[in-house]
Amino acid sequence: MTERPDQSPITSPRSERVRKVAALAGRSARRKQQMFRVEGPQSIRSLLAHRADLAREVFTTARADAAHPELADLAREAGITVHEVEDQIIRAMVREDATGPSPDGAQPDGAASGTLTSPQGVLALGHLPAEDPSAAVAAIAALPQQQPVTVVVLHEVRDPGNVGTLIRTADAAGADLVVLTRTCADPYAPKAVRASVGSLFHLPVVTGAEIDDVLEALHGAQVTAAATSGYAEAELFTAELPSRIAWILGNEAHGLDEHTLEAAPLAVRIPLAGHAESLNVHTAATVCLFETLRRRQARE
Amino acid sequence: MTERPDQSPITSPRSERVRKVAALAGRSARRKQQMFRVEGPQSIRSLLAHRADLAREVFTTARADAAHPELADLAREAGITVHEVEDQIIRAMVREDATGPSPDGAQPDGAASGTLTSPQGVLALGHLPAEDPSAAVAAIAALPQQQPVTVVVLHEVRDPGNVGTLIRTADAAGADLVVLTRTCADPYAPKAVRASVGSLFHLPVVTGAEIDDVLEALHGAQVTAAATSGYAEAELFTAELPSRIAWILGNEAHGLDEHTLEAAPLAVRIPLAGHAESLNVHTAATVCLFETLRRRQARE
Repeated sequence: MTERPDQSPITSPRSERVRKVAALAGRSARRKQQMFRVEGPQSIRSLLAHRADLAREVFTTARADAAHPELADLAREAGITVHEVEDQIIRAMVREDATGPSPDGAQPDGAASGTLTSPQGVLALGHLPAEDPSAAVAAIAALPQQQPVTVVVLHEVRDPGNVGTLIRTADAAGADLVVLTRTCADPYAPKAVRASVGSLFHLPVVTGAEIDDVLEALHGAQVTAAATSGYAEAELFTAELPSRIAWILGNEAHGLDEHTLEAAPLAVRIPLAGHAESLNVHTAATVCLFETLRRRQARE
Repeated sequence: MTERPDQSPITSPRSERVRKVAALAGRSARRKQQMFRVEGPQSIRSLLAHRADLAREVFTTARADAAHPELADLAREAGITVHEVEDQIIRAMVREDATGPSPDGAQPDGAASGTLTSPQGVLALGHLPAEDPSAAVAAIAALPQQQPVTVVVLHEVRDPGNVGTLIRTADAAGADLVVLTRTCADPYAPKAVRASVGSLFHLPVVTGAEIDDVLEALHGAQVTAAATSGYAEAELFTAELPSRIAWILGNEAHGLDEHTLEAAPLAVRIPLAGHAESLNVHTAATVCLFETLRRRQARE
């Protein structure tokens, strides 16, 4: 983590450094290199403005630099090196994992299978935060006391796109903290980073948690764990929602496991008015989080 | 449309009939064959239970038939033929379009590029409803009068997955009608059908509309067209929402065009509490539609 970035110019899309960036599509490469990548001006602006401590270096084309001069300014203020490279270098750095349903498989070397995403000419590398099972407990204990808080807990959410979108929505609804249990997709996967559109850097996001530890820590911090269930008696829009609340969101296919559902002190049903049998996890989260925001604003 | 389904058994995954079903991943093949396909027991149950008039035939493995006997019952009641086939036939029928970011490209013949989705052993064919620019106007005119109605209008929503998810959420929130302008992705694309999880068959969904005709028809039916805008003065949670409302939702990247935004009599801002700069179209739709449902329930 303290190794200084290589300052030499990158001229070949086949160079070792380019291949190492492309490999960051895979979780094992991210862990080995202790790095992750961030694509696109909006996400990189959020990284540099909110979490400059995580930023390591920025690669940009001359065109992207001219279109987004604020990025180089933010990088300079934070003491982060900006490398100007050709567009083909950026494109080679993001050749990755969009070829199939496998959510997080790295195929950095397969040009034939590599699909081009659209990094808009700018890419950053960040230091991967360590995955520490005790981080969630510490983050919950560090929440402000005796005032409203909203926490989002993702448990067994497997798709990196869903994880990123859920972080974005949690941010938009004013959540104070997002906790991911260790069975979730990695929020530092490129797909998750892209889907979060910078929100990953706007609020504390901690990974690697154990659900039982999280539930205990929430209880200790007087934050009520709440789950959604089609069988709950209380309905979201009419239920009393505590001002300190943690929404526990489960797996895309089978929802929350029985054990976690029973352990959550509050369960509410989201009203379904049509013939749809269920909502997907992100839709359910959106309804709960914005209802929480609405109540919070109505109380103020 | 009146041609009778071929009754002969299908034994080869390379047969003409299998290739024609696989080709339905592409919009031009759907138009040419006037058909679309539906995958998975839940969506097929919705098709047979709610829109048997659209159903043409069902293909199932023995295993899927045993696991979901209600499907054959529903098909029999509706006079729809059920073909028992080997699993490899079903898999060959859904070899399709998941290889790249192109939302609706058919590659039925490319085994190498074909990605397997998970049809759970059962697949149905339906008659493709004709795309008629006047259908939206007629559907709006046919809405119940002098009582609350909720309409969802999708304008330039390009991704079939988004279109399907938006239809599912509209259904869940009790919308009475979904209108798609002709620049939207096709709701009968396999990805859209999958994402709607049956909701495509739960409420009227009309395609091929012109936005100006839709706005005029809404006005004529005393339904207020409402748009979301980050610059609107009125905030969703405190604004007065008419009980007859149509939410107009725009393109994933650039939202609603200026012309449509100005033509909508109501514009509201969704409050954003964190640092997120925007919401994606589905998140915005979810917040607006469930706030509409909440108000409707509170009035009752």
